[in-house]
Amino acid sequence: MAPDPANDRITTWIGSSTSDTITVAGRDLPGELMGTVTLTDLAYLLVTRREPTAGQRRLLDAVLVSLADHGLTPSALAARLTYTGAPEAIQGAVAAGLLGAGSVLLGPAGDTAVFLADALPDDHADEALRGAAAEAVEGRRRQRLRVPGLGHPVHRVEDPRTPRLYALAQEEGVLGPHLRLLRFVADAQADASGRRLPINGAGAAGAALVDIGIPPMSVRGVVLIARTAGLVAHLTEEAETPMGMTLWHEAERRAEPPAYG
Amino acid sequence: MAPDPANDRITTWIGSSTSDTITVAGRDLPGELMGTVTLTDLAYLLVTRREPTAGQRRLLDAVLVSLADHGLTPSALAARLTYTGAPEAIQGAVAAGLLGAGSVLLGPAGDTAVFLADALPDDHADEALRGAAAEAVEGRRRQRLRVPGLGHPVHRVEDPRTPRLYALAQEEGVLGPHLRLLRFVADAQADASGRRLPINGAGAAGAALVDIGIPPMSVRGVVLIARTAGLVAHLTEEAETPMGMTLWHEAERRAEPPAYG
Amino acid sequence: MAPDPANDRITTWIGSSTSDTITVAGRDLPGELMGTVTLTDLAYLLVTRREPTAGQRRLLDAVLVSLADHGLTPSALAARLTYTGAPEAIQGAVAAGLLGAGSVLLGPAGDTAVFLADALPDDHADEALRGAAAEAVEGRRRQRLRVPGLGHPVHRVEDPRTPRLYALAQEEGVLGPHLRLLRFVADAQADASGRRLPINGAGAAGAALVDIGIPPMSVRGVVLIARTAGLVAHLTEEAETPMGMTLWHEAERRAEPPAYG
Amino acid sequence: MAPDPANDRITTWIGSSTSDTITVAGRDLPGELMGTVTLTDLAYLLVTRREPTAGQRRLLDAVLVSLADHGLTPSALAARLTYTGAPEAIQGAVAAGLLGAGSVLLGPAGDTAVFLADALPDDHADEALRGAAAEAVEGRRRQRLRVPGLGHPVHRVEDPRTPRLYALAQEEGVLGPHLRLLRFVADAQADASGRRLPINGAGAAGAALVDIGIPPMSVRGVVLIARTAGLVAHLTEEAETPMGMTLWHEAERRAEPPAYG
Repeated sequence: MAPDPANDRITTWIGSSTSDTITVAGRDLPGELMGTVTLTDLAYLLVTRREPTAGQRRLLDAVLVSLADHGLTPSALAARLTYTGAPEAIQGAVAAGLLGAGSVLLGPAGDTAVFLADALPDDHADEALRGAAAEAVEGRRRQRLRVPGLGHPVHRVEDPRTPRLYALAQEEGVLGPHLRLLRFVADAQADASGRRLPINGAGAAGAALVDIGIPPMSVRGVVLIARTAGLVAHLTEEAETPMGMTLWHEAERRAEPPAYG
Repeated sequence: MAPDPANDRITTWIGSSTSDTITVAGRDLPGELMGTVTLTDLAYLLVTRREPTAGQRRLLDAVLVSLADHGLTPSALAARLTYTGAPEAIQGAVAAGLLGAGSVLLGPAGDTAVFLADALPDDHADEALRGAAAEAVEGRRRQRLRVPGLGHPVHRVEDPRTPRLYALAQEEGVLGPHLRLLRFVADAQADASGRRLPINGAGAAGAALVDIGIPPMSVRGVVLIARTAGLVAHLTEEAETPMGMTLWHEAERRAEPPAYG
Repeated sequence: MAPDPANDRITTWIGSSTSDTITVAGRDLPGELMGTVTLTDLAYLLVTRREPTAGQRRLLDAVLVSLADHGLTPSALAARLTYTGAPEAIQGAVAAGLLGAGSVLLGPAGDTAVFLADALPDDHADEALRGAAAEAVEGRRRQRLRVPGLGHPVHRVEDPRTPRLYALAQEEGVLGPHLRLLRFVADAQADASGRRLPINGAGAAGAALVDIGIPPMSVRGVVLIARTAGLVAHLTEEAETPMGMTLWHEAERRAEPPAYG
Repeated sequence: MAPDPANDRITTWIGSSTSDTITVAGRDLPGELMGTVTLTDLAYLLVTRREPTAGQRRLLDAVLVSLADHGLTPSALAARLTYTGAPEAIQGAVAAGLLGAGSVLLGPAGDTAVFLADALPDDHADEALRGAAAEAVEGRRRQRLRVPGLGHPVHRVEDPRTPRLYALAQEEGVLGPHLRLLRFVADAQADASGRRLPINGAGAAGAALVDIGIPPMSVRGVVLIARTAGLVAHLTEEAETPMGMTLWHEAERRAEPPAYG
C-alpha cells in the first residue's frame, strides 16, 4: 500500500534531546522546568500546551487527589495479585492495575467528559444548558443507555467529593459550562425517571477537567496519572504486609465446583 | 495447605469509604486533602505515611518532572503503536508504555536507589562514604556487573539533569547521604576503570528519592507516576497527529527477510 | 452495601487441585489430558465445556494458525520495543503486544462474530439469511458504522485466508450459518454501496469460530491465544537480532518538532 | 549518537504479506499451513524454525496442556478483577493475567530451563550429569538461592504432572539430557540438604521444552501461550458467573485499617 506522503511525517511537540540539552514541551528541562513546576503543572502543560493558571492548577490537583485511590478496589487487588507472582517487575503490577480502568470503573470520568462536551450548546446561558441537558438525557434513555456521571453503588445519596469539587471550582473562578451542564443533567434525569441520582465524584471530576481545558478525549488518560500514584502506594504496602497469597487461598478454599459436564 | 492464621489478615492503610465518607491515608479526602495538597504531596504521603516538608516536596516534584518524558523512546512508541490497534482502550496503551520500564530503560533509577541503600554505611562522614563507595564498586566489578547510575548513551560527558538535581537538593537542605555516596561511587568507578562516567539523571533521581524518604524498593514504582504523565501526553498527541501507521509501514517496507530455512 | 447472598458465591468449572491430584475441566490433568489432547483441544474444551469433533478441531487450528502472525504489525513492534526496555520481564512484552488487539486491529474477528450472532435469524434457509443480511447491513449504514468483516487495507481484492477457511469448513462439514450469513452480508453491502469489499480473514475467522461453537463474546479472547504464539516468536527473534534500538533511533532522527507554543 | 550501520538493519523471518499472498515462517499461510498444522506445530515452527517430529509435537502439547490452568491462581484472579472494571477490553484482562507470570509463579519453568542449560556438561553420560548436578546445586546454595524446579507448596510429596511428563518423554523417545539432569539435581539437592523435594511440574516442563529444542530463553514465553488459553477460559466463565465484585466486597469487608499515623 502506497502511504500518502502527506501523512508520512513523524512530528512531536513533547520532547527531544541532544548530547547536552533536554527539551520538554519546548522548555529547557533542567533550566526552566525542574525546581519550577510541579508534576501536575507539567502534565497540564504537556496535554494542553499551555501553563495552568493558579485556579486551574488547584482544581487539577484536587481532581487528581480525588481519584488517586479508593481502597481495595478491583484495580488495586489486580495489581497486588500480579505482584504476588512477579515482584521483580513492579511495572507489570502497576500496568495490571491500570488495565481495569475501563467502562465500569474509573472510565466513567472520561465518559462523562465526552458526553458533556458533545451535549454542550454554543450558548452557555442557564436556559440553553437546561434544554441541552434534557435533550441529552432523553437521547441516552432512548438508546437505553445510562446517563454518565450519575449514581454510585456506595454513596447513594451524595458522593462527598462532588460538593467539594464544585465549591473549589467556584472559589477559584473556574466553575465552567461543563460542571454547570452536569447539574442540569442530574435534574433532567430526575425529572425523566422520577428518581434523583447524585452526581458522582468521577462525573464531577470529568466535567471539571474539561472546564479547565483538558481535551475531553484525554480525560480518561489524565485520570490514570492519579491512579498510578495510588497503585504505587498499594504495591509499597503489599511488599511490607502482603495480602496476595491470602486472597488466592481464600478464593480457592471458597470455590465451589459445579457439577462437571 | 493450612494458611498460618497469623498471616491471614488483610490490612490496608491506604483508603476506605462508607456511604458518606471517603478516607485516604487516614485523612478525610474531601475535607482534608482535596484543594489542600498536590498530587505529588499525596503520592509522598501514601508511600511514606508522612507529609513532605517544603524541601522534600520541591525535590520530589523536580525528580518527577525530570523523568516524565524523554521524547520518542521505546516506551512512548510502544504506547502509540498500541493506541493504533486499540484507540478505544487508552488504559491499555498507557500500560504498554509502562511495561517497558525495566532493567534497561527507566528501571535504573530504582536500581541505583537499592544499590546505594545497600552500600550506605552507618557513618555518613566523607571518609566512610568514600570507603563504602570503593567497596561497592569493587563488588560490582568482581561480579562483572555495571555500576548503576553512571553513564548515558546520549549524554556522554554530563547529563544536564544531574547538576540541577544536586543544586536543588543543596538549596533545599535535603542533599543527603545517598546523593553524596553516589558522587563517591562515580569517583571510585573512575579510579577503578580509568574512565570517568557521568552520573546519569536516573541515578541522581534514585539517590534523591531515597534521601527524601522514599523506600528504596518503591523508587522504581514512583518513577512510573511521572512516566504515566508523559505517556498520556504522547497519546493525546497520537490522537491528533498519529505516527503509528507510519511506523508500521516503514518497518514492513524496510524489513529484509533472511533466507528461509 | 449488603451483597446479595445469592450472588455471593464463587464457582469455577475450570480447575482445582489437592495435594496429589490436579483437575482441569473435570478431567484428571495428568491421566486424561496430558499426552492425549492438544492445546487447541484443551482451549476448545475449557471455553465450550465440550470436546471438539475432528472437524471442529481442524477448523479451530486453521483459524488459530491464520491469526497467529502478520509480520511487523503494531502489536509485534510494541512487544519488541517493550522488550528493549525490560528484557528480563518477557511477560510484559507479550502483554504489551496483546494490548493492541482492539477495535482496529485483531478485534474485528470478535466484532464480526458478535455482529453475525446478533443478526442471525432462527430460520437458516438462504432466503432468510439473505434478508437478515440486508437488514443488518442497512442498520449499520444508518448508524454510519462500518460493516464488520469486510475490506482489508492490503488485500483489496481477496484476502487469501478467506477462501481457504470456507473450503476447509466445507470439507469438514462445519460450514454453518454464520459463515453463510457473512457471504450474504458481503453481497448486501455491495448492493447497498455499489462497491464490493472482500470478506477479510478476521471476519471469516470470527464467523467460523461461532459456527464451531465458540461463544461470540469469547471470540475476541480466543484470537489472543494465537497471537500470543506469534508474539513469543517475535521476542525470540528480537533477542537474537534486535530491531528495537534501531526503531527508536530512527523515530527520533525523523521526528520534526513543530514550532513550540 | 551515530548508530552502527551494521546493526541498523531490520530483518524478520516470521511473516510478510503482499496484496494476494501471506507468508508465515517461509510457508504460504493458506496453502501450506492452514488446515495442515496445529497451533502447537506453528508455535514450534516459529520459535525453532524447524517442524516438530511426532514425538516433539506430542511432548510440546503435553507441556502446554499441563501449564494452561491451575484454577483460581493470582493470575486468573487478576484477569477476572480487571474484567470487572473493563469488560469491553478483554485483551487488557488477558494481559493483566499474563503479567503475574514472574519469578514466583509460572516463571520457574523458564528459570529451570536456563539453569539446566547453563549447567549441562558436554558429556551426557550419567556420571558426568551427576557431577554437573552436584556442582550446580552447590553453586546455588553458596549464593543462598533456591534450586529451581524443585518443591511445591501444594504437591509436597509428588507433583502429579512430573511422572507423567517423564513417562511421555520416554515413550516418545525424547527424554533428553535436560530432563535427565533435573533428576540428578533433585538427588544432589536431597544429599546436600538432607531433605528431598519433588521435581515440580513447572521444572519438568522447562526441562522437557529444552530437550525438544526450544531455546532456554524462550521457555518463559512459550509457557505464556498455554496460560493465555487458560485465561480466556476464566474470562468466558467470568462473563457468565462473575466473582469479581464478590472478591472486591469481601476484601473491603475484611480489611482492617491499622492505627493511622
